[in-house]
This record gives sequence, C-alpha cells and structure tokens, in this order.
Amino acid sequence: MVVSDPLPSWHDRGAKQAIVEFVTRVTRDRHADFVPPQERIAVFDHDGTMWVEQPMYTQLAFAIDRVKALAPAYPEWHAQQPFKAALEDNLAALAATGERGAAELVAATHANDTTDEFTEIVIGWLMNARHPTLRRLYTELVYQPMVDMLAYLRANGFTTFIVSGGGVELIRPWTQRVYGVPPEQVIGSRVKLHYEYRGNRPVLYRLPEIEPVDDRAAKPAAIYEAIGRRPILAFGNSDADFEMLDWTTAGDGPRLGVLVHHTDAAREFAYDRDTHFGRLSRAVDAAPDRNWVVVDMARDWREMFAAT
Amino acid sequence: MVVSDPLPSWHDRGAKQAIVEFVTRVTRDRHADFVPPQERIAVFDHDGTMWVEQPMYTQLAFAIDRVKALAPAYPEWHAQQPFKAALEDNLAALAATGERGAAELVAATHANDTTDEFTEIVIGWLMNARHPTLRRLYTELVYQPMVDMLAYLRANGFTTFIVSGGGVELIRPWTQRVYGVPPEQVIGSRVKLHYEYRGNRPVLYRLPEIEPVDDRAAKPAAIYEAIGRRPILAFGNSDADFEMLDWTTAGDGPRLGVLVHHTDAAREFAYDRDTHFGRLSRAVDAAPDRNWVVVDMARDWREMFAAT
Repeated sequence: MVVSDPLPSWHDRGAKQAIVEFVTRVTRDRHADFVPPQERIAVFDHDGTMWVEQPMYTQLAFAIDRVKALAPAYPEWHAQQPFKAALEDNLAALAATGERGAAELVAATHANDTTDEFTEIVIGWLMNARHPTLRRLYTELVYQPMVDMLAYLRANGFTTFIVSGGGVELIRPWTQRVYGVPPEQVIGSRVKLHYEYRGNRPVLYRLPEIEPVDDRAAKPAAIYEAIGRRPILAFGNSDADFEMLDWTTAGDGPRLGVLVHHTDAAREFAYDRDTHFGRLSRAVDAAPDRNWVVVDMARDWREMFAAT
Repeated sequence: MVVSDPLPSWHDRGAKQAIVEFVTRVTRDRHADFVPPQERIAVFDHDGTMWVEQPMYTQLAFAIDRVKALAPAYPEWHAQQPFKAALEDNLAALAATGERGAAELVAATHANDTTDEFTEIVIGWLMNARHPTLRRLYTELVYQPMVDMLAYLRANGFTTFIVSGGGVELIRPWTQRVYGVPPEQVIGSRVKLHYEYRGNRPVLYRLPEIEPVDDRAAKPAAIYEAIGRRPILAFGNSDADFEMLDWTTAGDGPRLGVLVHHTDAAREFAYDRDTHFGRLSRAVDAAPDRNWVVVDMARDWREMFAAT
C-alpha cells in the first residue's frame, strides 16, 4: 500500500519522525498510549512559530502604520513619544518608551472603533502591507511546514488552537482561510469591549484598555481558561513559550513539546539567544531533559513559505 | 419518504415550527438566507435555559454545601456572615449580605485548590448532591428538549456554545457527556489562575479573585472575546439574556432569538416577573417587536427531563 506523505514540506529527519511517532502512538486504538479524540488538544504559539516575527512583531508594524495613517488628525504626535518614534520608524526610541509607550501605542491604534470597524481596518491593512525585507504580504509569511502540521494533526482527530501573546484581532480574520482554524480556536490578548447602542442597534465598542495574555506563565492560565483542559501537544519557538510547553508536557500520559529554532538566514532569519523578538535560550537548554523536539528550520524544513 | 422527527421531545406547535423553519432556511444551499457552516454559531444561556435554576442557582447550592464541608476547620464561621447564613440554609440572610457576601462565599468555596483538585471536588459533589424538591442529581435536571435542540443544531452544521453567568468549573466537567458540548465551548465566570510549581511539577492554582462574566451587557462582550464573531441564534430565559439576544438578532442576515418561559409548575417551576433567580420581564415584553420566539414550557415541551 502506498500512503501519501502527510508532511511533504518536512524532510524525513528526526524532528518529523518524532512528531509522527507521537501522533501514531496516541491515535492507535487499543495502544497503551491511546488518547480519545476529544482530549487531543494541540496548541501553537503564533509569532515566530506560525509566521515571521523579525525584524519586528507584525502587530508592531501594524501599529506604526496606524500611527502614520492617523497622524494628520494629531499634529502633536510629531513631538510626543511614543508617536514621534513610530512616525520616524525609530525602533530603538520606541523600545525606550517601555511598557507605558507600548500601552499608549495600542490604545491609540487598536481602540475607539466598533469590533466590526476594527476588523475592516485590519483586513484592509493585511491586504496591502508588505514585510520590509521579504516583500510579501504578512499572511504569505506563514510557515508552510506548520500549516501542513495543523492539517496533519486535525486529520488525526486533534483540535488545533493558536495561542498568541499578540492581539487576537490581527489573527482571527484570516485563520480559517490560511490555517483552517476558526476564530474561536484563537486565544490571545484583547482590548476591553463595551456594549452600547448606535441608534437602536447594539454594537461592541473597543476601549483603550488592554487585557493581555502576557507570554510566559500567563499562557497556561489563558489556555486553561479558554479550553478547560491541558493540551497534550504544544509548539513554540521562544522562552515565552517555556511555561506552555512545561505545563503541557508535565501532565499524565503521552505528551510532546516542540520548539521551532530559527536557523535559516538564507530563507528567513537566524536568531536565538540575542534578539529583541522571540529570544530562545532557557527553553532550548531545557529541551533535552524534557524530551522536547527541537526543529532546525534550515535542516528540517524542505519548504519555508507557500508559493505565491 | 419518512423523515424521523429531530425534536421528539417538542410538541408540533409554533415554537418548534419557527425554530425548524429558521434552521431549514439557513442550511438550504442556494437559498437567499443560506449561512455557511462556520458562521452557524448558536449560544445558550445555562441556568434556567439548560437546567433548573429554582429554588436557587445550582452554584449557590454547591457553595452552601462547601461551606458546610469546610466549616469544621473554621469555627468562627458560625458567628460570621455570609457563612452563618449558609450554615443555617438561610437564603434571605445570605441575600442580605449582597455582592460582598457573594464574593466572600465564592472566595472561600471556589479557590485555594489546583484546577485538578477543584474539578475532583465538583465531580464528587455532582455525583451525590440532590435537588431539594425534585430529588434528582443536578445533571439529571437538564431539559431534554434543550438537549435535543443542541443535537439537532449540530446535525445541521451549527456549533453550539454554552454562555453562563455562573462559574465554568461547575459545568465543564460534564457537558461533553450530557450535552455533547466540549469544555472549550463553555463560556462563563472564572477565578484567576496562578501558574506555580508543586515540587518540579507545574500546576494552576485557583486564586480567590473572581473574573466574572456578569450577565446582561457582559454576555455579548464575553461571546465576542471567546468566539470572535456574532452568533446567528441565541437561547435565553431571563432579562439577563436580553442583550445577548438583542445583539445576536441585530446582525445582518437571518437571525433568531428564543426565550424559554417557565410556565410549568407541575413538572418544574412557574415564574417570570417576580423571582430572585431568572427574572423575565423586559425581555419577554420586547419579544414580539423583535420576532423572538417564546417557548411555553408547559405547552411546547412533550418531555421535561430525561428518564432516569
């Protein structure tokens, strides 16, 4: 019998083999490690795991573009941080404004619209904005091997959730089309919503108050709150995913953690211990002890992005 | 062709006919009102819509029983509200302690355990506690016509969500078995979780801080935060569901709101404008104008509870 390869974008090396072995084990009826379909929960970090996060998070690129689009109505921004830095594309100055600057940036660019209006803004931006060096639309900078992984897992009875430290509103409008993941299976940071009436029509208005799913220890809590159980499989790429992988793989029964290691400067970016976005140090050091699989993007992935 | 009745627990009267007509309309390919499956989101309030909420919310019965179970370790509770009222089954005195009393009760009875420990406590209670007058287990006091409705909608491509003002932890452990609804499709109030280690094993510890999904205007916001879209079908039973139904049915395209009216004192309870739990007044007054279906439990439901 010829079985077609469910992961054609992956080289037949250790990482792919370890993941396929795990999936085979938990789905084989009457195997000691069999897991019923409703408990086959897999979680995926987003920035750096599903799509490109260099030279900056896509959400930050969106916020900077929004500041530029809104600036004509706010002339004072040219002299006022964090807006001045955003208008000048000065990432170092932007970083220097710290958490307060980030909160002001999000409040000014992600709020004071209805949910429907903001979704329109996001879709319009994603249809036009291009990555500064790779020149593609951001939704074309998703990793094909990870898209194949989602489909492979779902074909094996898994439910696949995206768990991002970034805002859900930038992700939910396109996950069904690109990943096959419906919006209710996307967990992440949000702004507070206020129920109100426009005339006699109820709307949800976005307030400039962030309800973050901070990375790190907040991820397991956010997963449990949204899903009500512990996943059996977790994919991440940075130290911000350490707790998500640790909590996932500490449960009883078969468990697997996977780290995507950015090693491919030719096709994408190579970085780990020394970066502002997606630092990977503690988690990769902990991997051998915990039997986490480390994916070497340059060596394990036959393809990087889908053909356009 | 003989088609078996998908809603055998419902009488063939107006409410059933209106709901079936709506479902037929949105699922018929090439019909002007066709809705693709991924947008067929239906939301269901829980207390009083899916299960009995008289003479008090089940969660309150649980909290009172927990106070009694924990009281030997807290002798001071016999002289201290709200615990004294709980120990004496004095609902009027308990109500008089107000929001502060309710928060103290939840903090004392729903926290300071890991998530796994608390789920064990909930399951143990649900396996033993019985309703004070109907004498059944609480999970046997779910309305069979609503269980049939969930299955009928899912068979027609809908995704069915439970949206409760009560705590999710009392509901999630059994919704798959009783409703066919997985825990990730249950939205509701929660406590804050803290990620920490027991030895070298990560756990989520329940803090005595409530993150409520208050009823009323908080329900549409909680639904949008969890699901990322507006449902097309909403079932409720009280004024606390008014905004959920109003927001659902104010969207574009085909929409339906349904109110369950408790009219059956013989098989269950009859109440509407004058009750502490599940008051129904404004919403039922608004129903005719908005074309919401009002289910008369006594006349529309052939069965009430499943046979045990």
